[in-house]
Amino acid sequence: MTLSKAQDEVDEWANQYKVPYWTPHEILARLTEEVGELAREINHTHGPKKKKTPTEGSTIKEEMGDVLFTLICLANSQKIDLDECFQKAMAKCYGRDKNRFEKK
Amino acid sequence: MTLSKAQDEVDEWANQYKVPYWTPHEILARLTEEVGELAREINHTHGPKKKKTPTEGSTIKEEMGDVLFTLICLANSQKIDLDECFQKAMAKCYGRDKNRFEKK
Amino acid sequence: MTLSKAQDEVDEWANQYKVPYWTPHEILARLTEEVGELAREINHTHGPKKKKTPTEGSTIKEEMGDVLFTLICLANSQKIDLDECFQKAMAKCYGRDKNRFEKK
Amino acid sequence: MTLSKAQDEVDEWANQYKVPYWTPHEILARLTEEVGELAREINHTHGPKKKKTPTEGSTIKEEMGDVLFTLICLANSQKIDLDECFQKAMAKCYGRDKNRFEKK
Repeated sequence: MTLSKAQDEVDEWANQYKVPYWTPHEILARLTEEVGELAREINHTHGPKKKKTPTEGSTIKEEMGDVLFTLICLANSQKIDLDECFQKAMAKCYGRDKNRFEKK
Repeated sequence: MTLSKAQDEVDEWANQYKVPYWTPHEILARLTEEVGELAREINHTHGPKKKKTPTEGSTIKEEMGDVLFTLICLANSQKIDLDECFQKAMAKCYGRDKNRFEKK
Repeated sequence: MTLSKAQDEVDEWANQYKVPYWTPHEILARLTEEVGELAREINHTHGPKKKKTPTEGSTIKEEMGDVLFTLICLANSQKIDLDECFQKAMAKCYGRDKNRFEKK
Repeated sequence: MTLSKAQDEVDEWANQYKVPYWTPHEILARLTEEVGELAREINHTHGPKKKKTPTEGSTIKEEMGDVLFTLICLANSQKIDLDECFQKAMAKCYGRDKNRFEKK
């Protein structure tokens, strides 16, 4: 699955609806919600917070999928190419920030 | 760029370092920071907050790249396949949530 | 209720437990979770997202209480005086940022 | 400083401006930004991320003040009494969640 095809699949899904994409602020609020659910799972799995019921169930994996999906919605709504975003983030890693951490 | 290849590229970058990946809580804190920077850009571009200086510069696009990069770091550190996460998120859209919004 | 008394009440509650306060990263993850729940309520009340069931119930008010409570936990765990934090934030409003928005 | 007086002080400040309070989504985006800055400071102080420059300076204390200030703005904009929110959060701690963690 390429990033570009993932963006297309989300777009096809969104275009079934009267309002394909919410406003940037609304999608951002949704992203905040999904990151919050991921945070809860990380505290459950790697931290101190007991699950209310053991079968409550959603997992880190599922929450990461929801974060990615919401990020793609935001990108699509703004006609942003995530592939390009990723290339720039990697370039920054190898450029500006390359001596930020201790190498092997 | 496939999601799988993006995960490999980040992994290659991370493996230069003594500590390739931080703990889940540390990466989550970084993700929270990056989502916060995205939120700032959204308020600057679509909302009421004036930039302190007009050329301050980082953009929604750049911040989205940083969010995606950090999400990939978290996935890699936990040996999670983002492709699979995405498929599950899409399946949920077409399944459980399919009548959640008004169709065309 | 003063900020200082609120901090004391939370401290009294926390000190019943073997581990009164989690680590800063764990409390931060909890804060991220609570802000996420607040975001969900804001999308429900002021935005486009339908509640799954109409009586699902937690409200903006409740979520704001949880955010405040978690912030107080973080302050207590780090021996930080929130009263002082608030004074500094107000001072910044009247100082550095005083011409950031258009006055009446 | 009582919570109620803190809300009044913020209100007095806000009412100097043409638009005293932003929309709930805009204030939420600002809260997300401030929590992100707090996350960055926590990674700097308790985690693995080196500061770009050692005197960069904002601290956990300052960021907590900004989170609290933004929460108060949201409360004021929605005519929500934070004192009441806090009481409810404490009541939940002593009620529903009272056996969630191991006691001394």
